[in-house]
Amino acid sequence: MTPQAMLDVAVAEARKGLAEGGIPIGAALFTSDGVLLGSGRNRRVQQDDPSVHAETDAFRAAGRQRDYRSTVMVTTLSPCWYCSGLVRQFNIGAVVIGEATTFHGGHDWLAEHGVAVTVLDDARCVGLMTDFIAAHPELWAEDIGE
Amino acid sequence: MTPQAMLDVAVAEARKGLAEGGIPIGAALFTSDGVLLGSGRNRRVQQDDPSVHAETDAFRAAGRQRDYRSTVMVTTLSPCWYCSGLVRQFNIGAVVIGEATTFHGGHDWLAEHGVAVTVLDDARCVGLMTDFIAAHPELWAEDIGE
Repeated sequence: MTPQAMLDVAVAEARKGLAEGGIPIGAALFTSDGVLLGSGRNRRVQQDDPSVHAETDAFRAAGRQRDYRSTVMVTTLSPCWYCSGLVRQFNIGAVVIGEATTFHGGHDWLAEHGVAVTVLDDARCVGLMTDFIAAHPELWAEDIGE
Repeated sequence: MTPQAMLDVAVAEARKGLAEGGIPIGAALFTSDGVLLGSGRNRRVQQDDPSVHAETDAFRAAGRQRDYRSTVMVTTLSPCWYCSGLVRQFNIGAVVIGEATTFHGGHDWLAEHGVAVTVLDDARCVGLMTDFIAAHPELWAEDIGE
Protein backbone atom coordinates (compact mmCIF):
# COMPACT_ATOMS: atom_id res chain seq x y z
CA MET A 1 0.00 0.00 0.00
CA THR A 2 1.46 3.36 -0.99
CA PRO A 3 1.69 6.29 1.43
CA GLN A 4 -0.72 8.14 -0.85
CA ALA A 5 -3.28 5.33 -0.63
CA MET A 6 -3.00 5.33 3.16
CA LEU A 7 -3.37 9.11 3.16
CA ASP A 8 -6.66 8.77 1.26
CA VAL A 9 -8.19 7.14 4.35
CA ALA A 10 -7.07 10.06 6.52
CA VAL A 11 -8.38 12.58 3.98
CA ALA A 12 -11.79 10.86 3.99
CA GLU A 13 -11.82 11.23 7.80
CA ALA A 14 -10.87 14.91 7.55
CA ARG A 15 -13.68 15.54 5.07
CA LYS A 16 -16.14 13.72 7.34
CA GLY A 17 -15.04 15.98 10.17
CA LEU A 18 -15.54 19.07 8.06
CA ALA A 19 -19.05 17.92 7.09
CA GLU A 20 -19.82 17.52 10.80
CA GLY A 21 -18.76 21.10 11.45
CA GLY A 22 -15.44 20.07 12.91
CA ILE A 23 -11.76 20.81 12.33
CA PRO A 24 -10.78 18.94 9.14
CA ILE A 25 -7.88 16.78 10.29
CA GLY A 26 -7.99 13.03 9.83
CA ALA A 27 -5.66 10.16 10.69
CA ALA A 28 -5.35 6.41 10.44
CA LEU A 29 -3.12 3.73 11.94
CA PHE A 30 -1.99 0.93 9.63
CA THR A 31 0.22 -2.10 9.96
CA SER A 32 3.37 -1.90 7.87
CA ASP A 33 1.73 -4.15 5.26
CA GLY A 34 -1.27 -1.89 4.88
CA VAL A 35 -3.92 -3.37 7.15
CA LEU A 36 -6.05 -0.60 8.63
CA LEU A 37 -6.09 -0.84 12.44
CA GLY A 38 -8.20 2.23 13.09
CA SER A 39 -9.01 5.68 11.78
CA GLY A 40 -10.29 8.87 13.32
CA ARG A 41 -10.61 12.62 13.12
CA ASN A 42 -10.38 15.71 15.24
CA ARG A 43 -13.62 15.95 17.22
CA ARG A 44 -13.06 18.95 19.47
CA VAL A 45 -16.25 20.54 18.12
CA GLN A 46 -18.38 17.44 17.54
CA GLN A 47 -17.76 15.93 20.98
CA ASP A 48 -16.89 19.19 22.72
CA ASP A 49 -13.73 17.35 23.75
CA PRO A 50 -10.32 19.01 23.51
CA SER A 51 -8.48 15.71 23.87
CA VAL A 52 -9.69 14.20 20.60
CA HIS A 53 -7.12 15.03 17.96
CA ALA A 54 -7.15 13.02 14.75
CA GLU A 55 -4.13 10.94 15.72
CA THR A 56 -5.36 10.18 19.24
CA ASP A 57 -8.75 9.22 17.81
CA ALA A 58 -7.17 6.83 15.32
CA PHE A 59 -4.93 5.41 18.06
CA ARG A 60 -7.99 4.81 20.25
CA ALA A 61 -9.95 3.27 17.38
CA ALA A 62 -7.11 0.80 16.79
CA GLY A 63 -7.61 -0.60 20.28
CA ARG A 64 -4.91 -2.01 22.51
CA GLN A 65 -1.92 -3.18 20.48
CA ARG A 66 1.02 -4.86 22.10
CA ASP A 67 3.69 -3.41 19.79
CA TYR A 68 3.52 -0.35 17.58
CA ARG A 69 7.01 -0.51 16.08
CA SER A 70 5.76 -1.85 12.77
CA THR A 71 2.73 0.45 12.55
CA VAL A 72 2.32 3.58 10.43
CA MET A 73 0.42 6.65 11.61
CA VAL A 74 -0.99 8.56 8.66
CA THR A 75 -2.28 12.05 9.27
CA THR A 76 -3.47 14.85 7.02
CA LEU A 77 -1.46 17.45 8.98
CA SER A 78 1.91 17.59 10.72
CA PRO A 79 1.29 16.22 14.22
CA CYS A 80 1.22 18.71 17.10
CA TRP A 81 3.36 18.06 20.20
CA TYR A 82 0.53 16.13 21.85
CA CYS A 83 0.25 13.76 18.90
CA SER A 84 4.00 13.67 18.29
CA GLY A 85 4.41 12.66 21.93
CA LEU A 86 1.90 9.85 21.36
CA VAL A 87 3.96 8.57 18.42
CA ARG A 88 7.21 8.72 20.36
CA GLN A 89 5.90 7.16 23.57
CA PHE A 90 4.38 4.17 21.82
CA ASN A 91 7.28 3.75 19.41
CA ILE A 92 5.11 4.02 16.32
CA GLY A 93 7.63 3.27 13.60
CA ALA A 94 6.54 5.55 10.79
CA VAL A 95 4.49 8.68 10.20
CA VAL A 96 3.04 9.75 6.84
CA ILE A 97 1.99 13.40 6.77
CA GLY A 98 -0.33 14.98 4.23
CA GLU A 99 1.14 18.44 4.64
CA ALA A 100 3.26 20.54 6.97
CA THR A 101 2.72 23.90 5.32
CA THR A 102 -0.25 25.29 7.24
CA PHE A 103 1.11 23.93 10.56
CA HIS A 104 4.57 22.63 11.42
CA GLY A 105 4.32 20.34 14.44
CA GLY A 106 6.80 17.91 15.98
CA HIS A 107 7.70 15.75 12.99
CA ASP A 108 11.33 16.90 12.82
CA TRP A 109 11.70 15.87 16.47
CA LEU A 110 10.21 12.48 15.63
CA ALA A 111 12.64 12.03 12.75
CA GLU A 112 15.54 12.89 15.09
CA HIS A 113 14.32 10.14 17.39
CA GLY A 114 14.26 7.47 14.71
CA VAL A 115 10.71 7.66 13.37
CA ALA A 116 10.49 7.27 9.57
CA VAL A 117 8.75 10.50 8.52
CA THR A 118 7.28 11.11 5.07
CA VAL A 119 5.74 14.48 4.15
CA LEU A 120 3.62 14.26 1.00
CA ASP A 121 2.69 17.92 0.44
CA ASP A 122 -0.80 16.88 -0.62
CA ALA A 123 -2.87 19.66 -2.19
CA ARG A 124 -6.16 18.33 -0.78
CA CYS A 125 -4.79 18.53 2.76
CA VAL A 126 -3.36 22.02 2.24
CA GLY A 127 -6.69 23.16 0.83
CA LEU A 128 -8.74 21.76 3.70
CA MET A 129 -6.67 23.52 6.35
CA THR A 130 -6.12 26.77 4.43
CA ASP A 131 -9.86 27.20 3.96
CA PHE A 132 -10.68 26.16 7.53
CA ILE A 133 -8.13 28.45 9.17
CA ALA A 134 -9.37 31.40 7.07
CA ALA A 135 -12.98 30.70 8.03
CA HIS A 136 -12.47 29.78 11.71
CA PRO A 137 -9.20 31.23 12.98
CA GLU A 138 -10.38 31.17 16.62
CA LEU A 139 -11.23 27.45 16.55
CA TRP A 140 -7.90 26.61 15.02
CA ALA A 141 -6.03 28.70 17.61
CA GLU A 142 -7.96 26.93 20.37
CA ASP A 143 -7.08 23.53 18.95
CA ILE A 144 -3.35 24.19 19.09
CA GLY A 145 -3.39 26.09 22.38
CA GLU A 146 -2.55 29.50 20.95
CA MET B 1 -3.41 25.67 47.61
CA THR B 2 -0.14 23.84 48.12
CA PRO B 3 1.30 21.44 45.53
CA GLN B 4 0.85 18.66 48.10
CA ALA B 5 -2.86 19.47 48.51
CA MET B 6 -3.32 19.42 44.74
CA LEU B 7 -1.45 16.13 44.59
CA ASP B 8 -3.91 14.63 47.07
CA VAL B 9 -6.63 14.88 44.41
CA ALA B 10 -4.45 13.02 41.91
CA VAL B 11 -3.58 10.36 44.50
CA ALA B 12 -7.29 9.80 45.20
CA GLU B 13 -7.80 9.25 41.45
CA ALA B 14 -4.88 6.81 41.31
CA ARG B 15 -6.31 4.83 44.22
CA LYS B 16 -9.73 4.76 42.56
CA GLY B 17 -8.06 3.40 39.42
CA LEU B 18 -6.29 0.70 41.43
CA ALA B 19 -9.58 -0.31 43.08
CA GLU B 20 -11.10 -0.65 39.60
CA GLY B 21 -8.32 -3.01 38.55
CA GLY B 22 -6.51 -0.32 36.59
CA ILE B 23 -3.06 1.19 36.45
CA PRO B 24 -2.77 3.49 39.51
CA ILE B 25 -1.92 6.85 37.98
CA GLY B 26 -4.09 9.88 38.66
CA ALA B 27 -4.03 13.50 37.56
CA ALA B 28 -5.89 16.76 37.96
CA LEU B 29 -5.93 20.14 36.23
CA PHE B 30 -6.21 23.22 38.46
CA THR B 31 -6.26 26.94 37.91
CA SER B 32 -3.26 28.73 39.39
CA ASP B 33 -5.38 29.76 42.37
CA GLY B 34 -6.39 26.21 43.17
CA VAL B 35 -9.78 25.76 41.48
CA LEU B 36 -10.16 22.19 40.27
CA LEU B 37 -11.02 22.14 36.55
CA GLY B 38 -11.05 18.37 36.11
CA SER B 39 -9.47 15.17 37.35
CA GLY B 40 -8.95 11.73 35.89
CA ARG B 41 -7.00 8.51 35.91
CA ASN B 42 -5.42 6.00 33.62
CA ARG B 43 -8.22 3.82 32.25
CA ARG B 44 -6.47 1.56 29.77
CA VAL B 45 -7.84 -1.48 31.58
CA GLN B 46 -11.23 -0.16 32.72
CA GLN B 47 -12.23 1.22 29.32
CA ASP B 48 -9.96 -1.02 27.26
CA ASP B 49 -8.69 2.24 25.78
CA PRO B 50 -4.95 2.85 25.31
CA SER B 51 -5.47 6.59 24.81
CA VAL B 52 -6.71 7.32 28.34
CA HIS B 53 -3.70 8.26 30.41
CA ALA B 54 -4.30 10.08 33.68
CA GLU B 55 -3.27 13.47 32.29
CA THR B 56 -5.32 13.17 29.10
CA ASP B 57 -8.33 12.07 31.17
CA ALA B 58 -7.99 15.09 33.48
CA PHE B 59 -7.51 17.37 30.46
CA ARG B 60 -10.70 15.98 28.90
CA ALA B 61 -12.63 16.27 32.16
CA ALA B 62 -11.68 19.95 32.37
CA GLY B 63 -13.53 20.61 29.11
CA ARG B 64 -12.56 23.17 26.52
CA GLN B 65 -10.49 25.96 28.04
CA ARG B 66 -9.40 28.94 26.02
CA ASP B 67 -6.04 29.44 27.72
CA TYR B 68 -3.99 26.97 29.73
CA ARG B 69 -1.04 29.19 30.57
CA SER B 70 -2.20 29.77 34.13
CA THR B 71 -3.25 26.15 34.75
CA VAL B 72 -1.40 23.49 36.73
CA MET B 73 -1.36 19.82 35.74
CA VAL B 74 -0.84 17.62 38.79
CA THR B 75 0.02 13.99 38.22
CA THR B 76 1.09 11.16 40.49
CA LEU B 77 3.82 10.08 38.04
CA SER B 78 6.28 11.80 35.73
CA PRO B 79 4.36 12.36 32.46
CA CYS B 80 5.21 10.13 29.52
CA TRP B 81 5.98 11.71 26.11
CA TYR B 82 2.33 11.55 25.12
CA CYS B 83 1.27 13.50 28.21
CA SER B 84 4.32 15.77 28.13
CA GLY B 85 3.40 16.62 24.55
CA LEU B 86 -0.10 17.50 25.73
CA VAL B 87 1.34 19.91 28.31
CA ARG B 88 3.66 21.54 25.80
CA GLN B 89 1.14 21.87 22.97
CA PHE B 90 -1.48 23.52 25.14
CA ASN B 91 1.03 25.68 27.01
CA ILE B 92 0.01 24.40 30.42
CA GLY B 93 2.07 26.61 32.69
CA ALA B 94 3.04 24.29 35.50
CA VAL B 95 3.30 20.59 36.27
CA VAL B 96 3.38 19.08 39.76
CA ILE B 97 4.64 15.49 39.81
CA GLY B 98 4.18 13.00 42.63
CA GLU B 99 7.25 11.01 41.77
CA ALA B 100 9.74 10.40 38.97
CA THR B 101 11.53 7.43 40.50
CA THR B 102 9.63 4.47 39.08
CA PHE B 103 9.32 6.18 35.66
CA HIS B 104 11.17 9.17 34.25
CA GLY B 105 9.10 10.73 31.46
CA GLY B 106 9.41 14.05 29.66
CA HIS B 107 9.43 16.50 32.54
CA ASP B 108 13.01 17.66 31.98
CA TRP B 109 12.05 18.51 28.39
CA LEU B 110 9.07 20.46 29.67
CA ALA B 111 11.25 22.40 32.09
CA GLU B 112 13.65 23.23 29.23
CA HIS B 113 10.68 24.66 27.35
CA GLY B 114 9.58 26.94 30.15
CA VAL B 115 7.10 24.82 32.09
CA ALA B 116 7.40 25.23 35.88
CA VAL B 117 8.05 21.66 37.03
CA THR B 118 7.86 20.50 40.65
CA VAL B 119 8.74 16.93 41.64
CA LEU B 120 7.50 16.07 45.13
CA ASP B 121 8.96 12.58 45.65
CA ASP B 122 5.76 11.49 47.38
CA ALA B 123 6.01 8.13 49.14
CA ARG B 124 2.36 7.23 48.44
CA CYS B 125 2.92 7.65 44.70
CA VAL B 126 6.16 5.65 44.74
CA GLY B 127 4.42 2.90 46.67
CA LEU B 128 1.46 2.68 44.30
CA MET B 129 3.65 2.27 41.23
CA THR B 130 6.30 0.06 42.83
CA ASP B 131 3.65 -2.41 43.94
CA PHE B 132 1.76 -2.24 40.65
CA ILE B 133 4.80 -2.76 38.44
CA ALA B 134 5.88 -5.74 40.56
CA ALA B 135 2.42 -7.30 40.32
CA HIS B 136 1.64 -6.47 36.66
CA PRO B 137 4.86 -5.85 34.73
CA GLU B 138 3.22 -6.70 31.39
CA LEU B 139 0.43 -4.15 31.82
CA TRP B 140 2.88 -1.45 32.76
CA ALA B 141 5.10 -2.24 29.76
CA GLU B 142 2.04 -2.05 27.51
CA ASP B 143 1.04 1.31 28.93
CA ILE B 144 4.37 2.90 28.08
CA GLY B 145 4.83 1.14 24.75
CA GLU B 146 7.72 -1.08 25.81
